Amino acid sequence: MLYSRRDFSKLAGLSAAASLLPGNRATAQSPGPQSARDGRIGYCVVGLGRISVDHFMPGLLQSQHGKVSALVSGTPDKAHKLAQQYGVPAEAVYTYEQYDRIRDNAAIDAVYIGLPNSMHAEYTIRAARAGKHVLCEKPMATSVADARAMIAACATAKRKLMIAYRCQLEPVNLKAIELIRSGAIGQVQAIQSANGFNIQPGEWRLNRKLAGGGPLMDVGIYSLNACRYLTGEEPQVLSAYASVIDHDGRFNEVEENVGWTMKFPSGITATCSTSYGANMDGAYKVFGSKGMLELSPAFAYQGIHMKAQVAKADGSKGHDEIDLPEAIHDPQQFTMQADYFADCITHDKPVKMSGEEGLRDMELMMQIYRSAGLPTA
Amino acid sequence: MLYSRRDFSKLAGLSAAASLLPGNRATAQSPGPQSARDGRIGYCVVGLGRISVDHFMPGLLQSQHGKVSALVSGTPDKAHKLAQQYGVPAEAVYTYEQYDRIRDNAAIDAVYIGLPNSMHAEYTIRAARAGKHVLCEKPMATSVADARAMIAACATAKRKLMIAYRCQLEPVNLKAIELIRSGAIGQVQAIQSANGFNIQPGEWRLNRKLAGGGPLMDVGIYSLNACRYLTGEEPQVLSAYASVIDHDGRFNEVEENVGWTMKFPSGITATCSTSYGANMDGAYKVFGSKGMLELSPAFAYQGIHMKAQVAKADGSKGHDEIDLPEAIHDPQQFTMQADYFADCITHDKPVKMSGEEGLRDMELMMQIYRSAGLPTA
Repeated sequence: MLYSRRDFSKLAGLSAAASLLPGNRATAQSPGPQSARDGRIGYCVVGLGRISVDHFMPGLLQSQHGKVSALVSGTPDKAHKLAQQYGVPAEAVYTYEQYDRIRDNAAIDAVYIGLPNSMHAEYTIRAARAGKHVLCEKPMATSVADARAMIAACATAKRKLMIAYRCQLEPVNLKAIELIRSGAIGQVQAIQSANGFNIQPGEWRLNRKLAGGGPLMDVGIYSLNACRYLTGEEPQVLSAYASVIDHDGRFNEVEENVGWTMKFPSGITATCSTSYGANMDGAYKVFGSKGMLELSPAFAYQGIHMKAQVAKADGSKGHDEIDLPEAIHDPQQFTMQADYFADCITHDKPVKMSGEEGLRDMELMMQIYRSAGLPTA
Repeated sequence: MLYSRRDFSKLAGLSAAASLLPGNRATAQSPGPQSARDGRIGYCVVGLGRISVDHFMPGLLQSQHGKVSALVSGTPDKAHKLAQQYGVPAEAVYTYEQYDRIRDNAAIDAVYIGLPNSMHAEYTIRAARAGKHVLCEKPMATSVADARAMIAACATAKRKLMIAYRCQLEPVNLKAIELIRSGAIGQVQAIQSANGFNIQPGEWRLNRKLAGGGPLMDVGIYSLNACRYLTGEEPQVLSAYASVIDHDGRFNEVEENVGWTMKFPSGITATCSTSYGANMDGAYKVFGSKGMLELSPAFAYQGIHMKAQVAKADGSKGHDEIDLPEAIHDPQQFTMQADYFADCITHDKPVKMSGEEGLRDMELMMQIYRSAGLPTA
């Protein structure tokens, strides 16, 4: 009931905030089967928590290649309200019990899994069996075995599987990778990264059965994944320590802090921290023989900011300073992500942030937990 | 030949740069025995490398409590030129062979050891036996055994031993400690620090026999020491990786990079990096439950800069921002250090940066090397 496709086209390039101004409101998104084959990929949103409602679905409002086609929720009132907002027909609103019926809805090309971590595997596998592509939030799963099963199910069903590693599409992170590969900061020697927040009691993230682990699984994964995409290498060895400092009831099931060091085959060392007990800046620094770059924040939904000192192009002494202000390079990352996967599906392209990519992080996180003496699934 | 004591008094509080303006030049520093007991501590500077000539000795020019009384060098021309500049009598210029004669010079209260690391122990021990107090550069030594021998020699001779940990006197670092202890950033959860530089070939620092190790011993020690003074705790466990990436002849004897993680008894984790292959920013971040602080740079000779977000004093939501610009809190750190030790000697006060403090870092650095699979002395 909010936007016509024409409005989206006009709004392309504008910020999410601008597109949501009342003045931009227009006719309803044309719902149902008649729009199913309008060229856009229809997403079935599974789980209506914050990441879905506040980020993924608003991101689709600006998308040229994707749209919300169906919803899966255990809270019918919430689901039907959102269905109305997004022009989703009532028959495309499912309970979890009805989930397998998505097979029969041709308006659904892909599912977006925004569920607690431990449910990712089951709902991914059932989606694949229902013939749907899967865009699954990180962490991919709560165990390596589940991650492998997800990959196998999607392969068997010949459906695509993408893990929602936004940052691998985000332009400032991509610029960081480009600068590193081009030699602009010389030979990378070391990376530092920290990502964390001070968690509120009662969150499902503190429940081991739902979350699989603590801050490492939830936000430390950004630092881990960044070290891999910045180096283009896989860690050769790693060691970690974990702790609970605040005995206030929040950390009966998962860790509060993890600090770890990784060494890559080239010799690059990476030192990372994550926490549910402190707001960390979600930043990284990359130190090279000819310069350095810092993204702070590096992982936020908006406002990614790079400062870099790079070798002068003419080889002369000193550095050139690079400062990428957020205003220039600040796309709606959820729109970009939904569009990227839509493009992979439509044109049968390989997915960069594949199940195998998610699996690699899962394996490494389990290695980090084992090194820290923590239990793993 | 540069300054009278009166001039120094007038200049107190001004920056080193200002005090060196030609307009401030006055009569020669009164040299020799007649000034030996003028209340100032007479330092014998041992080794006339950069740290002595460019930093420690100019620092003494501004000191109210210390002065250069003697020099020890293997390069007579350089020594005599500096002796003239600093008003040191010719008979107070010693070769290394003549070093033990400092015993007979009553104008020498203390020695400043600015030699390559592996010589610290011998020249400290001989100074103590000659009845002199010792201010020794970091790292204290190249082995734990040497560090212990230095402590024992000074204890036996009832002479004071101080390791030149400037940062433990530097006001912005002290402010960081004060903020942490006062609870301004809540419970500290994690610390990150990196310190390094891209070393030129041919430096004695690349010679294992002289340096004892690579960047860890030379600059990583700042991060290590900072983690200890920021937490007020000793690391309980640690693990490390080291590497040589640049096979260009510089790193035949010492490591190029070290990354390590430490866990403290409270549960605080610290992740640190050091390098001789990249300029690192010599910074640290401390992440707490109610705020964070960053010193960047934290370890430089000048311009230490803190940015902090601290809990509001009235307990209300949000943060107060602290920004300590360098202009306000930028003393001549070498002057401050020389004055601090002079005060400890004159008033027989305990030295904060004691031999035991240096020994603790030595033990930890050896533990880091062992963890990284590197040889230790």
